[in-house]
Amino acid sequence: MSDTAVEQPELSELRRVFDGRWARIREEARQALRRPDFGLAGDLDRDAHRQHVWEQLQQLAKVGHSRLGFPTRYGGEGDTGASVASFEMLGYGDLSLMVKSGVQWGLFGGAIQALGTERHHQRYLPAVMSLDLPGCFAMTETGHGSDVQHLRTTATYDPETQEFVVETPHESARKDYIGGAARDARLAVVFAQLITEAESHGVHAFLVPIRDDAGNPCPGVRIGDCGGKAGLSGVDNGRLWFDRVRVPRENLLNRYGDVAEDGTYSSPIENAGRRFFTMLGTLVRGRVSVAGGAGSATQTALAIAVRYGEVRRQFDAPGHEREVALLDYLAHQRALLPALAKTYALRFAQEQLVSTLHELQPADGLATASSPAGVQDAADDGERQSVAESAEEAERRQRELEARAAGLKAIATWHASSTIQACREACGGAGYLTENRLPQLRADTDVFTTFEGDNRVLLQLVAKGLLTGYRDQLGDLDALGMVRFFADQVWEAVAERTSARNLLDRLRRVAPGRDEEGDLRDREWHLALFEDREKHVLDGLARRLRKAGEPGADAFAVFNDAQDHVLRLARVHVELILLEAFTDAVAAVDDPGVRALLDRLCSLFALSTIESDLAWFLGHGRMTPGRAKRVTSAVNELCQELRPHAVTLVEGFGIPEDWLDVPIAQGAEAQRQDAQHEHDTATRAAVRQAG
Amino acid sequence: MSDTAVEQPELSELRRVFDGRWARIREEARQALRRPDFGLAGDLDRDAHRQHVWEQLQQLAKVGHSRLGFPTRYGGEGDTGASVASFEMLGYGDLSLMVKSGVQWGLFGGAIQALGTERHHQRYLPAVMSLDLPGCFAMTETGHGSDVQHLRTTATYDPETQEFVVETPHESARKDYIGGAARDARLAVVFAQLITEAESHGVHAFLVPIRDDAGNPCPGVRIGDCGGKAGLSGVDNGRLWFDRVRVPRENLLNRYGDVAEDGTYSSPIENAGRRFFTMLGTLVRGRVSVAGGAGSATQTALAIAVRYGEVRRQFDAPGHEREVALLDYLAHQRALLPALAKTYALRFAQEQLVSTLHELQPADGLATASSPAGVQDAADDGERQSVAESAEEAERRQRELEARAAGLKAIATWHASSTIQACREACGGAGYLTENRLPQLRADTDVFTTFEGDNRVLLQLVAKGLLTGYRDQLGDLDALGMVRFFADQVWEAVAERTSARNLLDRLRRVAPGRDEEGDLRDREWHLALFEDREKHVLDGLARRLRKAGEPGADAFAVFNDAQDHVLRLARVHVELILLEAFTDAVAAVDDPGVRALLDRLCSLFALSTIESDLAWFLGHGRMTPGRAKRVTSAVNELCQELRPHAVTLVEGFGIPEDWLDVPIAQGAEAQRQDAQHEHDTATRAAVRQAG
Repeated sequence: MSDTAVEQPELSELRRVFDGRWARIREEARQALRRPDFGLAGDLDRDAHRQHVWEQLQQLAKVGHSRLGFPTRYGGEGDTGASVASFEMLGYGDLSLMVKSGVQWGLFGGAIQALGTERHHQRYLPAVMSLDLPGCFAMTETGHGSDVQHLRTTATYDPETQEFVVETPHESARKDYIGGAARDARLAVVFAQLITEAESHGVHAFLVPIRDDAGNPCPGVRIGDCGGKAGLSGVDNGRLWFDRVRVPRENLLNRYGDVAEDGTYSSPIENAGRRFFTMLGTLVRGRVSVAGGAGSATQTALAIAVRYGEVRRQFDAPGHEREVALLDYLAHQRALLPALAKTYALRFAQEQLVSTLHELQPADGLATASSPAGVQDAADDGERQSVAESAEEAERRQRELEARAAGLKAIATWHASSTIQACREACGGAGYLTENRLPQLRADTDVFTTFEGDNRVLLQLVAKGLLTGYRDQLGDLDALGMVRFFADQVWEAVAERTSARNLLDRLRRVAPGRDEEGDLRDREWHLALFEDREKHVLDGLARRLRKAGEPGADAFAVFNDAQDHVLRLARVHVELILLEAFTDAVAAVDDPGVRALLDRLCSLFALSTIESDLAWFLGHGRMTPGRAKRVTSAVNELCQELRPHAVTLVEGFGIPEDWLDVPIAQGAEAQRQDAQHEHDTATRAAVRQAG
Repeated sequence: MSDTAVEQPELSELRRVFDGRWARIREEARQALRRPDFGLAGDLDRDAHRQHVWEQLQQLAKVGHSRLGFPTRYGGEGDTGASVASFEMLGYGDLSLMVKSGVQWGLFGGAIQALGTERHHQRYLPAVMSLDLPGCFAMTETGHGSDVQHLRTTATYDPETQEFVVETPHESARKDYIGGAARDARLAVVFAQLITEAESHGVHAFLVPIRDDAGNPCPGVRIGDCGGKAGLSGVDNGRLWFDRVRVPRENLLNRYGDVAEDGTYSSPIENAGRRFFTMLGTLVRGRVSVAGGAGSATQTALAIAVRYGEVRRQFDAPGHEREVALLDYLAHQRALLPALAKTYALRFAQEQLVSTLHELQPADGLATASSPAGVQDAADDGERQSVAESAEEAERRQRELEARAAGLKAIATWHASSTIQACREACGGAGYLTENRLPQLRADTDVFTTFEGDNRVLLQLVAKGLLTGYRDQLGDLDALGMVRFFADQVWEAVAERTSARNLLDRLRRVAPGRDEEGDLRDREWHLALFEDREKHVLDGLARRLRKAGEPGADAFAVFNDAQDHVLRLARVHVELILLEAFTDAVAAVDDPGVRALLDRLCSLFALSTIESDLAWFLGHGRMTPGRAKRVTSAVNELCQELRPHAVTLVEGFGIPEDWLDVPIAQGAEAQRQDAQHEHDTATRAAVRQAG
């Protein structure tokens, strides 16, 4: 079964493949983000860490990081993909700086860019980029984090003064966990229910000054500090309360909804729910970025743990001259190498996702075809229809982007938590010390699983996207009472993805009893298994949910009983996306050594993923018990085959060496001394016995 | 399938069951450990936190906590079990204090007690208890943590001066991560290779002063600070280097090995490996205590998350007047309730473990039957044989205690990590804030999985214990080259555990195809499945390992290829222990309401454990796919049935209310306001429409 060993491939080639389309930006970042300016925070207390990050943020603005994703006409570089790639590079360093930059230029600046119109862009974007105007993104409230459509903060239009009055109606409606609010932000993008002429039009975004130039809270604004957190201590998360704070009418970010001087509301999108989710959709870059940043942190942890596993030795073994390196133990390989394989899979899927984002949300094209407003501007019927079709297609692509971003963000951030944890444990007591970075990586990334969308809520969005293909059978999902759980949004099926491949042939491959003796590393078989599983889980879920439409059914109970099934659907869907992305990436590699290595790594990803869901494959007759056992054996074999390449694979990440400069990654010399000691002791004993 | 609902049981009865044999100690601790003296550390920096914990430690000495586990003749209370129970209670508060107390009275004082003789007890124990003599336990070295038999520090006897010369031969032989070393300890128990007359006799423990009364390092002793850690910032972990430090001959803790004035070595135990592991065995209380402390932290996290899940609401649902409480969602129940069930299982298994420890290692009986020294003291042949038999039985029980302690410590600490993590995520952003305790609980307990024995190394010890029953087939395990992996120790089979039950009848129950329609909550069926699984995994592993004895076999490769199988054996073994302990505990409950509730919780533990290993049961013909699906449905049903009792079940832990006084556990009022707001808004809208 085991193939011949893979040759050690060219590291530069591997890095090129790993870096992908924005390799230049990544390389520039490696050069720009060196010490001393971008050194790690070390052992600072909260105040000092915040100050340190604030100073680094100013450096970032100077080196141009902040301009990448903004329109060229306001001094930006108009490169959406580059802005995400650059953000990801920050993920190798202090994650507080990464998050802080994401707040300023991604969330705060991004909201002005995506939800505002020219008057906002002209007035604010240059100062946002230069950091002359530090801001924050005030969406989450203590009482409403996942269900942001039902935020309680209100912004009521007063036609007398042509102002909006922003108000926090009760304690749990305060804005909470707002990055930048506790210390640095001057201006907040505040999400609030827009009320005009005594009618609510749903959540909109408003620019609300919260601090004056001296740094004091503006009248009517109360600011609190969230205090200590598990990690990200360099980010100043805070709370905001608004006591009838007045802002001019023009402070409404009015791309998707506006209020005239007399108080008349207008919007290019009729339906309030649809309008809100269109607004949210323009902010998808945040989720894409979090998935990428989680990837960088995961890679850093793996690089540290793999280097340590290579030099650290423990226990003698018969036939081994020196004590055994940790990475030579199967249990150690199993703890790290499947995680390493999945990290590559996520990187390749992220690369595809960023490319799609880059095309659909060009930084210079602020009113793209994805804006449903385009439909209404068309002149005659023919044009209208063609515009409508292209708008429909654009909206379909946008919805798929959102679903993928949601799914990858969830899976990538959970993967970060579990992998960094595994790395910490693989380094024992040394992994618990701050000097070795792992504790901070673990603590900083921990919140990623619940911010920018709680992972379980996000997976439900993914599942909903897949279920819309079943709308004819299910009726209107929204009418079934699932509206809130899946978020109030209607989108098209995203099933065309598989059309390019011969699905039927694939499905034949997974018929029970087939391929019993087939090659366990056959990629087509892996793909077939993953596709078939998604289809089966989706069919089954659709059947279950159909019951919600039956007379007298308790729609909530039907949905709730199936919630684990819903989450499972999303997971298996993302796993298929990962396998496809990995497969495509391997196919595109020219260098035969790199291709062979990555091909094997892809097999490890596929088979370890299958292994972790063996109960499903066995329970659904997709695999005999004998073959299931061979899957486990194949994972073990792949671990042992890839073990000699583990260091190369983490070197492939191209993490700036400054950030891997931790004591345990430098253990080779200590281990050499220790081996020498053992050798000398043995020699002395032998001499004694002989003498 | 679903039974009638369980009545809400008497909380006091539930607490009584949960508290167990040392209920009085637990209740006293609840009273003694109140604020202000034992308040949480809050937002202190490292130095302040260390000082805070040091002051609390002195309080603990005053309230008598420190005396519980020491012999009455030196002023202790002679109650081993009480000392562990009291330690566990500290686990509800600041875990830095718990660990610090464990270092002083468990590891440091415990080593003097267990490895020293009367001269040490008399001289040191009173000052250890009163904290007049703060100490540390210097075993781990940078280069050797798991393989402590091969520590590099040496203690060479010099007959000229009748002193031992303690030395750190090279950098990676420094003592590392030593709690108490960085700041407070005056005296260290140092583990070092004892060398006399140019011969090494293996690792022994020596008392080495490291600081004088003014707090300055003693001559030849260099002390470093491990600095920042992921958690436990109130514990002063440090590093120690010894440069030819001389201590008197009497500073050898000489219960298991002594050196005469002329340098002659003597020991009641011939074999050096066996001697060392006997010494380690006397220190098993540390592992038992860590398992218990991990349990307390887990319970605290669950209490916070369950209370929050009860009051926190999110998303409307058809047919629900208010937004839905988080705990009403199946996914939320699945995240918390099986973990809650396992937490109870671990508590009951811990109770049994502490009872066994209490009997085998009585604090007042320092030279018990478990000391192999007893064998040699017997007078005539008959007596000698009877003493030998009882010594053999005592040793068997001691080995079983060690195996159970190792297994429970591993499973309990991993359970703590994963459960506290799940609780953190279940509380979203609020769970990330220090004010809500979860971050600190997570970070503090994180190191438990690798200290007091790396969990994966411990599980291999458990597996070895089970394999010794196969010694006749396998030959001497040690000779197979597995000696170091399983630790150099020979013990007896621990298989008699199941003798009281009718195993044959059990095994019939799990024959393929049987019981297809049987009650999924039948405890006998669960037990049969767990026992049969352990037996099958054990048989299979023994078969695999036998190959190591074949001519020309690479013993390391055979072992290494089976390492995942070894870990699996230990896991399934511990799961059986947990199920038995839970079953026994339920059977012993008098109150019918409590019994019914715990019985259902035990079913949830059993079925969720089975569910997480369904691939094995399906792959080995123990279950049909249909029944496997019903297992998943049964877990869902049990979650929904237990959901109304979730708060009661966490109240059953009896955690002092002072330590649950965190903002998110008090969210009921905020949610009420929010609901009122929603109601008022709806009313206003209705009035407007009507008007």
